Amino acid sequence: MGLTALCPGTFDPATNGHLDIIERAARRFDAVVVGVLDNPAKRPLFTAEERVQILKEATAGLPNVQVAAFSGLLVDAARQVGADVVVKGLRAVTDFEAEIQMAQMNRALAGVETLFMTTSPEWSFLSSSLVKEVARFGGDVSALVPPGVPERLRERLGGGA
Amino acid sequence: MGLTALCPGTFDPATNGHLDIIERAARRFDAVVVGVLDNPAKRPLFTAEERVQILKEATAGLPNVQVAAFSGLLVDAARQVGADVVVKGLRAVTDFEAEIQMAQMNRALAGVETLFMTTSPEWSFLSSSLVKEVARFGGDVSALVPPGVPERLRERLGGGA
Amino acid sequence: MGLTALCPGTFDPATNGHLDIIERAARRFDAVVVGVLDNPAKRPLFTAEERVQILKEATAGLPNVQVAAFSGLLVDAARQVGADVVVKGLRAVTDFEAEIQMAQMNRALAGVETLFMTTSPEWSFLSSSLVKEVARFGGDVSALVPPGVPERLRERLGGGA
Amino acid sequence: MGLTALCPGTFDPATNGHLDIIERAARRFDAVVVGVLDNPAKRPLFTAEERVQILKEATAGLPNVQVAAFSGLLVDAARQVGADVVVKGLRAVTDFEAEIQMAQMNRALAGVETLFMTTSPEWSFLSSSLVKEVARFGGDVSALVPPGVPERLRERLGGGA
Amino acid sequence: MGLTALCPGTFDPATNGHLDIIERAARRFDAVVVGVLDNPAKRPLFTAEERVQILKEATAGLPNVQVAAFSGLLVDAARQVGADVVVKGLRAVTDFEAEIQMAQMNRALAGVETLFMTTSPEWSFLSSSLVKEVARFGGDVSALVPPGVPERLRERLGGGA
Amino acid sequence: MGLTALCPGTFDPATNGHLDIIERAARRFDAVVVGVLDNPAKRPLFTAEERVQILKEATAGLPNVQVAAFSGLLVDAARQVGADVVVKGLRAVTDFEAEIQMAQMNRALAGVETLFMTTSPEWSFLSSSLVKEVARFGGDVSALVPPGVPERLRERLGGGA
Repeated sequence: MGLTALCPGTFDPATNGHLDIIERAARRFDAVVVGVLDNPAKRPLFTAEERVQILKEATAGLPNVQVAAFSGLLVDAARQVGADVVVKGLRAVTDFEAEIQMAQMNRALAGVETLFMTTSPEWSFLSSSLVKEVARFGGDVSALVPPGVPERLRERLGGGA
Repeated sequence: MGLTALCPGTFDPATNGHLDIIERAARRFDAVVVGVLDNPAKRPLFTAEERVQILKEATAGLPNVQVAAFSGLLVDAARQVGADVVVKGLRAVTDFEAEIQMAQMNRALAGVETLFMTTSPEWSFLSSSLVKEVARFGGDVSALVPPGVPERLRERLGGGA
Repeated sequence: MGLTALCPGTFDPATNGHLDIIERAARRFDAVVVGVLDNPAKRPLFTAEERVQILKEATAGLPNVQVAAFSGLLVDAARQVGADVVVKGLRAVTDFEAEIQMAQMNRALAGVETLFMTTSPEWSFLSSSLVKEVARFGGDVSALVPPGVPERLRERLGGGA
Repeated sequence: MGLTALCPGTFDPATNGHLDIIERAARRFDAVVVGVLDNPAKRPLFTAEERVQILKEATAGLPNVQVAAFSGLLVDAARQVGADVVVKGLRAVTDFEAEIQMAQMNRALAGVETLFMTTSPEWSFLSSSLVKEVARFGGDVSALVPPGVPERLRERLGGGA
Repeated sequence: MGLTALCPGTFDPATNGHLDIIERAARRFDAVVVGVLDNPAKRPLFTAEERVQILKEATAGLPNVQVAAFSGLLVDAARQVGADVVVKGLRAVTDFEAEIQMAQMNRALAGVETLFMTTSPEWSFLSSSLVKEVARFGGDVSALVPPGVPERLRERLGGGA
Repeated sequence: MGLTALCPGTFDPATNGHLDIIERAARRFDAVVVGVLDNPAKRPLFTAEERVQILKEATAGLPNVQVAAFSGLLVDAARQVGADVVVKGLRAVTDFEAEIQMAQMNRALAGVETLFMTTSPEWSFLSSSLVKEVARFGGDVSALVPPGVPERLRERLGGGA
């Protein structure tokens, strides 16, 4: 029948851990929509447009992946893009608990089913926050994020290296 | 001898999960005082008075339950209302760890004993924060909170339907 | 393209929690194969044939669900039934950790991807072991397992009620 | 009205951590019944009678505490002794998860409410299994268990010291 | 060869739990450098200089311990002070997860190895945040922090007692 | 002064995850003793001698590493080999809790300090049990264990390939 998966997140910025989940979802589902949450209240470092652009570049080689910004409730976004399921990566136990509560809520509210993939071990320590903290003090993050992101981080944060 | 239990929280706003704990405590203990933490530093959506009012309406049918605001240390509130024990609901592991530290501290400081109840499974995914986030974007939360709360959330947040 | 999901487990016996995951998987995937692990070393209460039979009865109304026993490695079973993904339910944090290790191993060994669903809150406290322990002492488990299972438990365990 | 608490466990043997929970429960509740689970399938080191005897000696100074063996379901024991609540100590997260499932099950089966106390920090690393393992190799456990237990462990295990 | 350990933290203010880790590290390693993170973005209650001063007084009796402020990346601080390893205390599971991610990142970035000690049970409920919250409302924290800290907290917070 | 670290375990058999911890400990400490727990009650697949032999081969290139079997209490083994600290790897939260209890016990019993390293992400899913289970059904584990182990597993388990 053809399943569409929505991969939602803040992606501020996208890391290799995010890309790993997106690529694995793209291999299993017919279509993947990467949904970039546009939530100015969270004060992201990059605008939603920039975050969408980074992900478009990083997923250019994956023909069944689309990237779009969304605001508001995840369940509304899932309905708009016609997603059959939400797909998310899980790294750690504290992730798991917050995510499980969100997933139960989304199912109770709108019947939206969330499927979790385990983050690949090599990226299990990685988060957008850690990347930004390292970059802020001039650390080299090029092994942790897609090409193009280190330059953008330097520009935005004015760090060294 | 008659045991009085203090059920403390921010209750911003009260959810059906909170009510479930309060009702179960009221069935086991002689008296229950619901203590609404008045902590403006946490920037609650509702004032302490509004939160007390919501809980008074929701517990109107429980004769041995009282609702009051308190500020300052929990151990002082427990002493003031003559509570023998503090009763709290636990949902998740991360809850558990923060709560266990608070409970050990309260016992070390003032001999106040905390008893934990497990949140009913049907509300284990529920939190005041999730309720506010859903309401903010116009989602329907009427199955998740006591009567009267959805209207107040709409008023305060200006959301849709 | 049509995705086939393998739902593996010991199912000794199947509970309403298992059925909930199977039904939800059947709604999202084209085909679901319930794989009953035939591992005599675990000394199950019911034979693999009995466990398959219970699940066949319980899923009789789901046309895209099949039930089969398997022994050996999960990744081999996935290959045999042509499963694109493995689907499992997650209840708790300790589940999560054991499952995440198994999932990483299965992906490392054979590229088999595991997708996790969150168990419905009302069954989050339920396990086959708890059901057997309750039944062993004559407790009533009819609200926790599919029809037919309470009788089988009584027969096997010789309990009361 | 007078609340009776049931403190259940295997107590093989009782440790200072168990005693800490029993004493704290005895201070808050009108009556405490320590329920020693008589489950030969668990192959305890001490018989149920020995475990009851150890606890009777250790709680001799607590007039509102009784000790009794029980077999079968916890909810039946609670009913028999007229317990209003079950009281248990929690040490760690994995404890918490197993206990929460048991508590939900007991409430679903028979309306039995479980209240959890946090184990005192100084005993948070302590378990009957660790005590037995240390004693088995001649380690000194006298600071970890009530008087009388080290002798009994030596007798049973034939260890040194 | 002589191992130098870096014990990093915000120490706002140092607690008896921090001191316990520092003292135990000083007993095992040749030299210990306590690194006070100077991160104004975290809005500490005490300046980095005050936090260094508190720790210097509290560790005055430990000849192989030095205290210094650092800003920027931990891996750079480790390099500057010639630390062979980073030593940290772990209290709880949520600590553990955040710390494990940080440790993996520091090893991936710069080969810096982190060794974790378990916080002594009697301080396992203790955190600088809890201390500040208690002090803010006039609670007595003198049993929880090194001498000199209660006065400084009173001065800064203007609390009672 | 020269620190000696004891790396204890059952190592049935050693995996690449164990080797990773041993190698990293050997880089930081002056001497490392790998202590193979000889506990027949755990019914290991390989004898203590075989497990020591596997580790000797796998650590042949590390001049400051020794391998020895021990029985009885870890704290006695630490004393015998003159170890200043115990060093262990941590993979997951449930590991963490069991390990923290053991570490607190060993410190309370005999002042033995345990230092934990985080297992490298690529081995975080790996355990001796999983390796044995995979090997038992003919799966290829050569990427997960030191050279020589796959042959020994095949011999012992009579598996395929």
